[in-house]
Amino acid sequence: MNSQHIVRAYDDELATLGNRIAAMGGHAERMVDEAVGALINADVALARKVIADDIVLDEGQRWIDDRAILLIAKRQPMADDLREIIGTIRIAADLERVGDLGKSIAKRVVAVSDTRQPVQLFRGLEALATLALTQLKQVLDVYASRSIGAIAFMRDRDEEIDAMYTSLFRELLTYMMEDPRNISPCTHLLFCAKNIERIGDHATNIAETVYYVVTGEQLPLERPKEDKSHRVVLGSSSAS
Amino acid sequence: MNSQHIVRAYDDELATLGNRIAAMGGHAERMVDEAVGALINADVALARKVIADDIVLDEGQRWIDDRAILLIAKRQPMADDLREIIGTIRIAADLERVGDLGKSIAKRVVAVSDTRQPVQLFRGLEALATLALTQLKQVLDVYASRSIGAIAFMRDRDEEIDAMYTSLFRELLTYMMEDPRNISPCTHLLFCAKNIERIGDHATNIAETVYYVVTGEQLPLERPKEDKSHRVVLGSSSAS
Repeated sequence: MNSQHIVRAYDDELATLGNRIAAMGGHAERMVDEAVGALINADVALARKVIADDIVLDEGQRWIDDRAILLIAKRQPMADDLREIIGTIRIAADLERVGDLGKSIAKRVVAVSDTRQPVQLFRGLEALATLALTQLKQVLDVYASRSIGAIAFMRDRDEEIDAMYTSLFRELLTYMMEDPRNISPCTHLLFCAKNIERIGDHATNIAETVYYVVTGEQLPLERPKEDKSHRVVLGSSSAS
Repeated sequence: MNSQHIVRAYDDELATLGNRIAAMGGHAERMVDEAVGALINADVALARKVIADDIVLDEGQRWIDDRAILLIAKRQPMADDLREIIGTIRIAADLERVGDLGKSIAKRVVAVSDTRQPVQLFRGLEALATLALTQLKQVLDVYASRSIGAIAFMRDRDEEIDAMYTSLFRELLTYMMEDPRNISPCTHLLFCAKNIERIGDHATNIAETVYYVVTGEQLPLERPKEDKSHRVVLGSSSAS
């Protein structure tokens, strides 16, 4: 085996890791999209499918971890390639968590579909999910293209998700105060909203990893990532 | 520099990583303990301290990441040591998340302390936090001692945390139904309970990493880790 051959095999192995990340990303996006669809349409069968699908991401993460560590041990890569490989370990962990969050939404479908909820609550959740999924899709595109110029823009998007989540949080609380029968289903919707908001955080984590992989630098620590829902206090006077 | 000297320097660098993990673990435990204390005693000053303390774990994680990658690039370690180093990256990520969860609890102190909540709700939260912190402390002890025999026992503990969380979830929902003025503070307490439950999950993640570091094997995928709160549906008839 000549040295050119070895370099080619190494590049192939790196590309295989990248392809698996792309596949995991697509799978995670679909899971979240379907989970939110199942929630909105009270589709218990679809929810069950999402729950069953999660294993694919668990296995994907383990495969990436094992493969990445083998690759490091075998090839002993220097700085750039090492960052690349460590990056796949980190991104796989974030995508596995996104899958868990999708699964967690799907698990609440039965509890929520028990009683009919007003359409505007679901619209809010759907809009939040669209934002978070766009964020996730964009960051996976950045990972594929290495065009890190888009990363600054992504942080603004994360703020948008946080603001929308906080407004939804307030809306759900108001609705719970209007009628105690709403408390149980709306609590589950609150957790679904929180899960979607956290998908945005994972997209931001991935953006930071991609930045690190490409530049070798870490993004400054302070980022404006924070939902404001922890400050929301609604007195009973807010209830109609 | 003779080869014995190199080995010694390498061991020192590995030990430095391990010491930093231990320090991060102690810091994370203290943050969670203080956050729950601040919540129970409506201690806003302590809550602010916890929020400010989180930066220590963010910096700790970055330091471990940078140091670990440098160490891999410089020493090109083989299987055992490589697992050890990758293990520190994973554990640092879990501890950083535990700090975030503690901070998230601390941020809700103001919203919750606005109205007086019944003592038994706080007792439930405190008991849950004690379990989760015990879990975290034990897994950090396992990491330090490498006595992985204790890991099977830890999974049972995780089930105990999940059961306690589900019961607290039900209790908080009932309390919200009794009086709409409880909805806003109890929603924040629900999220605090969820945060504490997730600290238990991170302890379990760390246990899996330690197992992998020591044995080179991954624990079987299926673990009984799951809270049952997503199934809880309380009709308004449960309200007094």
